[in-house]
Amino acid sequence: MNGASLPIVFATDFGPGTEWVGVCHAVMVRIAPQARIIDLTHTLPKFDARAAGLILRDVLPYAPRCAAALVVDPGVGTQRRAILVLTERGDLLAGPDNGLLPLAAEAIGGVAAARSIETASTSFTFHARDVFCPAAARLSTGTSFAAIGPDIAVSSLVRAAPLIADVREGPIECEVLDVDVFGNVRLSIRPDALQKAGLDGETLNVETSRGRSTAVRRDTFGALAQGEVGAIVDSFGWMTLCLNRASAADMLGLARGSRITLSRGGAVDL
Amino acid sequence: MNGASLPIVFATDFGPGTEWVGVCHAVMVRIAPQARIIDLTHTLPKFDARAAGLILRDVLPYAPRCAAALVVDPGVGTQRRAILVLTERGDLLAGPDNGLLPLAAEAIGGVAAARSIETASTSFTFHARDVFCPAAARLSTGTSFAAIGPDIAVSSLVRAAPLIADVREGPIECEVLDVDVFGNVRLSIRPDALQKAGLDGETLNVETSRGRSTAVRRDTFGALAQGEVGAIVDSFGWMTLCLNRASAADMLGLARGSRITLSRGGAVDL
Amino acid sequence: MNGASLPIVFATDFGPGTEWVGVCHAVMVRIAPQARIIDLTHTLPKFDARAAGLILRDVLPYAPRCAAALVVDPGVGTQRRAILVLTERGDLLAGPDNGLLPLAAEAIGGVAAARSIETASTSFTFHARDVFCPAAARLSTGTSFAAIGPDIAVSSLVRAAPLIADVREGPIECEVLDVDVFGNVRLSIRPDALQKAGLDGETLNVETSRGRSTAVRRDTFGALAQGEVGAIVDSFGWMTLCLNRASAADMLGLARGSRITLSRGGAVDL
Repeated sequence: MNGASLPIVFATDFGPGTEWVGVCHAVMVRIAPQARIIDLTHTLPKFDARAAGLILRDVLPYAPRCAAALVVDPGVGTQRRAILVLTERGDLLAGPDNGLLPLAAEAIGGVAAARSIETASTSFTFHARDVFCPAAARLSTGTSFAAIGPDIAVSSLVRAAPLIADVREGPIECEVLDVDVFGNVRLSIRPDALQKAGLDGETLNVETSRGRSTAVRRDTFGALAQGEVGAIVDSFGWMTLCLNRASAADMLGLARGSRITLSRGGAVDL
Repeated sequence: MNGASLPIVFATDFGPGTEWVGVCHAVMVRIAPQARIIDLTHTLPKFDARAAGLILRDVLPYAPRCAAALVVDPGVGTQRRAILVLTERGDLLAGPDNGLLPLAAEAIGGVAAARSIETASTSFTFHARDVFCPAAARLSTGTSFAAIGPDIAVSSLVRAAPLIADVREGPIECEVLDVDVFGNVRLSIRPDALQKAGLDGETLNVETSRGRSTAVRRDTFGALAQGEVGAIVDSFGWMTLCLNRASAADMLGLARGSRITLSRGGAVDL
Repeated sequence: MNGASLPIVFATDFGPGTEWVGVCHAVMVRIAPQARIIDLTHTLPKFDARAAGLILRDVLPYAPRCAAALVVDPGVGTQRRAILVLTERGDLLAGPDNGLLPLAAEAIGGVAAARSIETASTSFTFHARDVFCPAAARLSTGTSFAAIGPDIAVSSLVRAAPLIADVREGPIECEVLDVDVFGNVRLSIRPDALQKAGLDGETLNVETSRGRSTAVRRDTFGALAQGEVGAIVDSFGWMTLCLNRASAADMLGLARGSRITLSRGGAVDL
């Protein structure tokens, strides 16, 4: 944990505790024996660079300035480029050119510059081990951004599709960004959007493919009665549907990517 | 890993490898870049401070003296207090005032003193990130117990309900404390209770809501025949129902919180 | 992270994020406060020393020379020995004598010598905590191989059954070694075996207990059409059946230990 070295942030969709995560750690320790490695998450949505990038965008601001290997990579081994992104904050993010990195960088200043990573991979299917983690480890020990490979135009990077959140006066159509381990349902809108749409009353109608429910605006899980659906602002600032000590996703039949419509609810008897 | 700093112990119900665990690591590394962080468990029973506290009570004696963030917190954001507990061993345990910490401290000397944590949280729903982990990280780098917040009476701390284990001569009613990843079923009694009840023969009758089975007393999993239910003393000293290379919980239909009755079994043909 | 100490590699079937993994970390940190601990995997196949050893054989070459605790141990507490293996590369591997360690050592030079670990365990059921991890931690801080216990004959070590892979001209019968988190199916053969058998055409017939399918040889997941079964060489050099962004194991009804027969496929219209 040399003060001179950058910590390494590591995030994947490999699943927790797998040998895939472990072998990447092994590779990084060989290259950078003194480096701090922070496992930011290994439960990123599989095959879905956009959903994964949205999660990384929320959590990277909490990390120190870092070298990172960020890997959700269904196109591994194809023509998709291996890239390194320099953020405005000074982070160095290695990963596939599939939309993941620009999203991940958004809340730490965005992309300042990009390089193509020029490493001969020994595999067609495991570039975390063979390309991205070695790059992050070398960067953590002082290898320069420019030494990684040739400059590429920031405008050439693949970008993820924008969020679905149709915000205007009246009902809002939005999407489910994520369902967490407690079954809380994160929506693609923030509280200011509700206000803009005139939906800032005490209740919301929630229309899903399964039917209609009512959600009450609350600050905490604990303020909800048993079985009552809450609409709270989660810890990353997103509107979230939840229950008190139970799974809102199960109750409402929602999963990542589900579309729902929010509209003005009626009055509530308290 | 400065010798002068306390290691940080981190335990939650966030699930392994989630971004919730990762963002807390990120926050702690920013505050205490040299600290050793020990992930003691991230699979604590969700929403259940008592069951979680019982697990922590068993494992904390194996940890070095530490600063800790211990978080199972269904009441996050409500009026429940954020507290810091000093143990007789000198550990500093940060977490919610819901019964978790006094149980966790029980086998490392119990609670010597307590403070209220005075941190303005930026969220209503993620105090691990915003309150408990920052406190543990600051304590690991030398912030004093007293600097965390005002003294509170130890007698005012919320306490968990005592174990259900009706021990006297004759049948014992007890509860399932936990089911582990192998399907072993930990009961709320220790072997001395069986002896006290006169149930220290070679077999036990096990009565569950599903019916009656026979368990044989053994020292090891490997000493059980295929399909035979064993009653062994587990590695933390609890009576445990198990099978050899299979799940006793599945076979007997037991889960955390299930009630069972143990009584004297018949003789066994060997 | 003292340069003089060996890193500790830790691998088990305890499941990610469990208190079992955590308590072992706690024990190792008490003995070796400065050691780097690499969690190589905690999702090894439960109860299956051979399948676990095959995974470790593939990943250990990526790790630095190390002290290791490698634990898949259904016979814990029985007469099976606790052993320490010295590899030709200089690694020190502690674990049960059930076939796991010789397999794990195979790709880092094989077993050069072995010792019996002479530690009084405080439990019958948790030797990772009480025997193997303490041994690995002591070895990491400089305890010598010879100090661990008496020499035992390498020829006396328990060995795992060889792979099932009947390779000759014509159809190959082989076994499923592993199914990963993406549902990719690792077979017990390498590409040179296909060539030897004359099955190096563009397609393979795959016969399972469920019926017959066709797999096409490809380099990458991304080169497969939706729903098309691919036969690729995975990142550890094994033939693997896969789909593009979906689970081949689910589609073909395969699990670890399944037997399949590969034979020459027909031509493909492209």
